[in-house]
Amino acid sequence: MASQIPVVVNGATGKMGREIVKAVSQARDMTLIGAVARNPDVNGQDIGEVIGCGALEVPITNDYESMMAMLSQEKELGVVVDVTHPDAVYGNVRSAIAYGVRPVVGTTGLSAEQIHELAVFADKASTGCLLIPNFSIGMVLLQQAAIKASQYFDHVEIIELHHNQKADAPSGTAVQTAQMLAELGKTFNVPIVEETEKIPGSRGGQSDEGIRIHSIRLPGLIAHQEVIFGAPGQIYTLRHDTSDRACYMPGVLLSIRKVLALKTLVYGLEKLL
Amino acid sequence: MASQIPVVVNGATGKMGREIVKAVSQARDMTLIGAVARNPDVNGQDIGEVIGCGALEVPITNDYESMMAMLSQEKELGVVVDVTHPDAVYGNVRSAIAYGVRPVVGTTGLSAEQIHELAVFADKASTGCLLIPNFSIGMVLLQQAAIKASQYFDHVEIIELHHNQKADAPSGTAVQTAQMLAELGKTFNVPIVEETEKIPGSRGGQSDEGIRIHSIRLPGLIAHQEVIFGAPGQIYTLRHDTSDRACYMPGVLLSIRKVLALKTLVYGLEKLL
Amino acid sequence: MASQIPVVVNGATGKMGREIVKAVSQARDMTLIGAVARNPDVNGQDIGEVIGCGALEVPITNDYESMMAMLSQEKELGVVVDVTHPDAVYGNVRSAIAYGVRPVVGTTGLSAEQIHELAVFADKASTGCLLIPNFSIGMVLLQQAAIKASQYFDHVEIIELHHNQKADAPSGTAVQTAQMLAELGKTFNVPIVEETEKIPGSRGGQSDEGIRIHSIRLPGLIAHQEVIFGAPGQIYTLRHDTSDRACYMPGVLLSIRKVLALKTLVYGLEKLL
Amino acid sequence: MASQIPVVVNGATGKMGREIVKAVSQARDMTLIGAVARNPDVNGQDIGEVIGCGALEVPITNDYESMMAMLSQEKELGVVVDVTHPDAVYGNVRSAIAYGVRPVVGTTGLSAEQIHELAVFADKASTGCLLIPNFSIGMVLLQQAAIKASQYFDHVEIIELHHNQKADAPSGTAVQTAQMLAELGKTFNVPIVEETEKIPGSRGGQSDEGIRIHSIRLPGLIAHQEVIFGAPGQIYTLRHDTSDRACYMPGVLLSIRKVLALKTLVYGLEKLL
Repeated sequence: MASQIPVVVNGATGKMGREIVKAVSQARDMTLIGAVARNPDVNGQDIGEVIGCGALEVPITNDYESMMAMLSQEKELGVVVDVTHPDAVYGNVRSAIAYGVRPVVGTTGLSAEQIHELAVFADKASTGCLLIPNFSIGMVLLQQAAIKASQYFDHVEIIELHHNQKADAPSGTAVQTAQMLAELGKTFNVPIVEETEKIPGSRGGQSDEGIRIHSIRLPGLIAHQEVIFGAPGQIYTLRHDTSDRACYMPGVLLSIRKVLALKTLVYGLEKLL
Repeated sequence: MASQIPVVVNGATGKMGREIVKAVSQARDMTLIGAVARNPDVNGQDIGEVIGCGALEVPITNDYESMMAMLSQEKELGVVVDVTHPDAVYGNVRSAIAYGVRPVVGTTGLSAEQIHELAVFADKASTGCLLIPNFSIGMVLLQQAAIKASQYFDHVEIIELHHNQKADAPSGTAVQTAQMLAELGKTFNVPIVEETEKIPGSRGGQSDEGIRIHSIRLPGLIAHQEVIFGAPGQIYTLRHDTSDRACYMPGVLLSIRKVLALKTLVYGLEKLL
Repeated sequence: MASQIPVVVNGATGKMGREIVKAVSQARDMTLIGAVARNPDVNGQDIGEVIGCGALEVPITNDYESMMAMLSQEKELGVVVDVTHPDAVYGNVRSAIAYGVRPVVGTTGLSAEQIHELAVFADKASTGCLLIPNFSIGMVLLQQAAIKASQYFDHVEIIELHHNQKADAPSGTAVQTAQMLAELGKTFNVPIVEETEKIPGSRGGQSDEGIRIHSIRLPGLIAHQEVIFGAPGQIYTLRHDTSDRACYMPGVLLSIRKVLALKTLVYGLEKLL
Repeated sequence: MASQIPVVVNGATGKMGREIVKAVSQARDMTLIGAVARNPDVNGQDIGEVIGCGALEVPITNDYESMMAMLSQEKELGVVVDVTHPDAVYGNVRSAIAYGVRPVVGTTGLSAEQIHELAVFADKASTGCLLIPNFSIGMVLLQQAAIKASQYFDHVEIIELHHNQKADAPSGTAVQTAQMLAELGKTFNVPIVEETEKIPGSRGGQSDEGIRIHSIRLPGLIAHQEVIFGAPGQIYTLRHDTSDRACYMPGVLLSIRKVLALKTLVYGLEKLL
């Protein structure tokens, strides 16, 4: 049997944490050796039983430091997956690196300054560290394909569709996609007629980069994004539909495997594809 | 052989007129007996040769009155299809009815008052007359299906997509669709969270009826409309794509056949389906 | 306060039953007065607590007969929703009607003969009874819109897309949709060229009615159906996406309300729309 | 003014040739200096007038050799775009290379052996030569994005949709896309249940690589391809719609610009992106 990657999940009882515990415990090349949760009520209980997937013989703990110490004693390099809170993540990552543990961080909310400091810290320790704001491989593939297409198409609009419980529009991912397309420095969508909006807003919201974003909100939708490129005689459409948190697990497992070979902090799943 | 409907096309050399000439000349139950055009340069030439579909042995004329007189002498009831200009159509229709000819009118631009007058005039003459602003059977079916669905769904948005030569947004058909849904007197899309637009317009334009309309403009698009209904756990989408004026011909031929049995003015293709 | 419809759910702890218990207990014009389950282990427990939506003060029972007797004593006409098993449903419905209770039946598996007998029985008792194999209002609307469109379009294909745990192809609903279109007696999709399949099956499966059905199976899909009508220059597409059993609840509640006014057995949600 | 690329179009009066003549004559960095056609009837006529875009002062010729000789005398390196016939293309390309002219070849039908011979010939002459079976940049981008995605997704199906005048199924491009995905050497779509087809063909045609291809044929469709990737919780869809030959022109112009810097034969537009 090949060597196993020892993994600790921090934030194990949250929505993402539960999925990650399941995915890691089912991965052939990984061993779940710890589950950290802030809630003291579940301390000592088996994480598998708490999340309803059968006993995993891994008791939940809220002592993160001890867990890092334990992980650093494993024969194989250890990985901690952090899906906790914006106010805890910076300390968590420093502590992990100090113990020689490789962090894979899904928690967002780190400032640019904090990210810089962690990068310096990881660099000095020659320890890989991954900050992954979006674990969805499908969405990253879409964005990379869109960047490629934007070199050849001069016209593009974005439609994002979400359930009507989502209050803000447009979605962060749609705005991010528009920014990525803009990095090329190109002017998109130069009009060939003088456009008039008989109903204000019908032509969508215009990003700083001049790309129109249209946000649909309806019950029954989940999370969907379309990037539509147009040129005379053709349309090229990229669409991603998310229906379940399970979609993030391939990105989580890939990150766990890839962080081991890194010596520095790396930001974004796209760097791994 | 069954009796043939004698048909005259007025505006025969325009974009719609050319398609109609072809469609009528190929229909088994119709005979093209006249083609009227305003342009004197083509007077007397064979309409089939002018529009490039081979000789039809029907010379173009610009004498509309004489053509109506001739049509009124046919053994079978005659039909004139009018695809001319807003400033000519009122007189054309009155004249046709006076001769006992049944008008099928695709020309738009008649005022409400003019339509009322023509209705009274057709009524007195017991002559059928069809005013059809949109000959697209597919779009009318979509609108009827949307009206039906709006009784059972409380949430709906409209996306319309057109080439970037279209200057105005939203499309007239999208606005009309929203109005049709509103006739039910229902309040759609009651929000369940407080929505915020980080980029103004991203949530689309809101029709008087509170229905969001999103207008996409890209080269490569032709003419497309989607009506998307949402409810918990389901989405019901109606979509119509137009790629060629040929799509209007089934509606034109249906109108020609149906006008013969009418005794009054009827407005809208939906009345015939 | 308006009078309330007293409702019993039979099969209350099954997947559909749970959703129906929730929906009925939240409906303003209904009162859940009983929950029947075959499993003796949950007998006497509160149905709300068993299904995880908080106490509803309705104990689960496995004594269906007594529950029907109790329901027949209510001041208002009572309804039983049956989502049980093919082998139990016939007896359940007879018993309900005998007690003057109106059955709304989602359970499938009744033979044509059994349905006929129940219809005669309901007729004699002047008691409404609804057999609803598919509670999805969205799908029924799609099918009705497709039937309407099939009068005007001569070409149509069906694509159905489901998760890859679905073993059979095509889906029952897709086959049913093809049958509905065929009831018009029309010949669809007369080829205009001699078609050749370089890879057998690429043109899909042909229903008895000559309608091509294409079945896609992928993880990440849930349950989707598209009916695509084509004519020169236009495409008209009807699409239904199901993502959650919640989508059936409007059809269940509508059926409960409508069965009260019926005096006979009625088959199919489409009769109520 | 920057130097201009002198261009000859061979097959100038065919469907593709006409579009290329227009595109080249409108490109700021190109000068159309010759138009070759096999049909002797149009010899000597102005190509612009023949194709209906106004006089271009370029007479049509059927003397290809002389045109190559003339092009080789230009100060700037010349390019010939070949959109002729399978039986003529091999000789055309050899002759062009012999004159030091760079061929851009859209004509298909060369055998593997012929391609090899032309590659050797171009190599010896240190002359760039492009064989481009598909000038559609959008389709090539789709295929490249699909190849990238196939590394991360294990499940994929292809739907291609064309007008019902297309006799063969599946489309050559869909088969080619399946082959490209297969080059990775991966086994796609391992079933997790035992599939049964109640209607043969409903699950589509299976390519040699085990990828299902579904071919839709309807009037109103033009030319469309979808590649759908699935994984638990997500779907990633790539779609390309072609509505007009204009869509090939960016690929033609790109090829003309790129062939000048090449010293060998290159096959496929994807090598240039």
